[in-house]
Amino acid sequence: MIIYSGGMDSTTLLYQFKNEIKLAVSFDYGQKHNKEIEFAKYHTKNLGIKHLIIELPFISQYFKSNLLNSGEAIPHGHYEDSIMKQTVVPFRNGILLSIACGLAESNGLNKVFIANHAGDHVIYPDCRSTFIGAMNEAMAYGTYINVNINSPYQYLTKREIALVGKNLGIDYTKTWSCYKGQEFHCGICGTCIERKEALIGFDNTVYQ
Amino acid sequence: MIIYSGGMDSTTLLYQFKNEIKLAVSFDYGQKHNKEIEFAKYHTKNLGIKHLIIELPFISQYFKSNLLNSGEAIPHGHYEDSIMKQTVVPFRNGILLSIACGLAESNGLNKVFIANHAGDHVIYPDCRSTFIGAMNEAMAYGTYINVNINSPYQYLTKREIALVGKNLGIDYTKTWSCYKGQEFHCGICGTCIERKEALIGFDNTVYQ
Repeated sequence: MIIYSGGMDSTTLLYQFKNEIKLAVSFDYGQKHNKEIEFAKYHTKNLGIKHLIIELPFISQYFKSNLLNSGEAIPHGHYEDSIMKQTVVPFRNGILLSIACGLAESNGLNKVFIANHAGDHVIYPDCRSTFIGAMNEAMAYGTYINVNINSPYQYLTKREIALVGKNLGIDYTKTWSCYKGQEFHCGICGTCIERKEALIGFDNTVYQ
Repeated sequence: MIIYSGGMDSTTLLYQFKNEIKLAVSFDYGQKHNKEIEFAKYHTKNLGIKHLIIELPFISQYFKSNLLNSGEAIPHGHYEDSIMKQTVVPFRNGILLSIACGLAESNGLNKVFIANHAGDHVIYPDCRSTFIGAMNEAMAYGTYINVNINSPYQYLTKREIALVGKNLGIDYTKTWSCYKGQEFHCGICGTCIERKEALIGFDNTVYQ
């Protein structure tokens, strides 16, 4: 199964491993950009992969992060700038992986794909290989069927992921990145800048 | 902070470390015995500790376990019998610890207490020291403030925990164990048998 946001990275992962993936799960945790989930619906339907959407309203209610509806404005700057720490949702990937792990075991699936990548590592502690390695052990020890994590993009840049997707023929205009979640990509928040850098030279329109 | 069900073990942990614990969190995940949460409310109020109750309806909706409202009947037998595997909620402690970890970091707290104990280890993989050790690493790596797990009852039996509680003067009639969650403890499900074994020789009434 896969943790699938509807962004560039996890959409690429979905298409690359579409023959192995039997179940996709998206989370609405009060992120300002939950419109990404509409793109997740589109691609799972397109590939005929079962798709669950799980709401986690307690995160926006009790957690502190500017990524959330309950937080302050999204900061502007480069994705790897320290100001982007304001967009960290504490231990989000731990929570999403744990839920996916329980879902996987409930469905007899022993593999969870996640699309964390090298560009995440500077700001997001729960995207680094040290975290993923320990979490992988926790999931294997904590389940009867030894569920494990597959994170094949861990050492790829977003640019390298985009090139994988280009080869797969993915239309990135049908993915969402901008943390503001408005009608169009803002172009100046960290994830918009990262998206632009990844898609330089691509034919199709980046923003819509 | 503490993951606090309202059962015997976590109530003992709450009282034993009441001076260190600033926040308690209980989870309603569709367990048949969610009346345990009423006892959690009672003791946190009694001690003046802030208490959050978080609902996780997706667990009963999508997970397979006879502990859940969506599952079959609670099996009868000893707590350590293999039939009790039916009451395992896949990776429940991983999910609860992850959410507690995010809550802890959001509140500037770097310690999460959990009352897993030696009797759990036979049936519940997410109560064993191997799981707790790996999860502890994942939480430390996955947060800025290196949140860690305190599980002081990991190698104690439930009987030994009850003796700690007796010294602390805890009234165990004001805790809930029975997985059936009916008006009275049934006395024949796994957790009722375990409770009875732990409380042999105690003055106060076990069941109510």
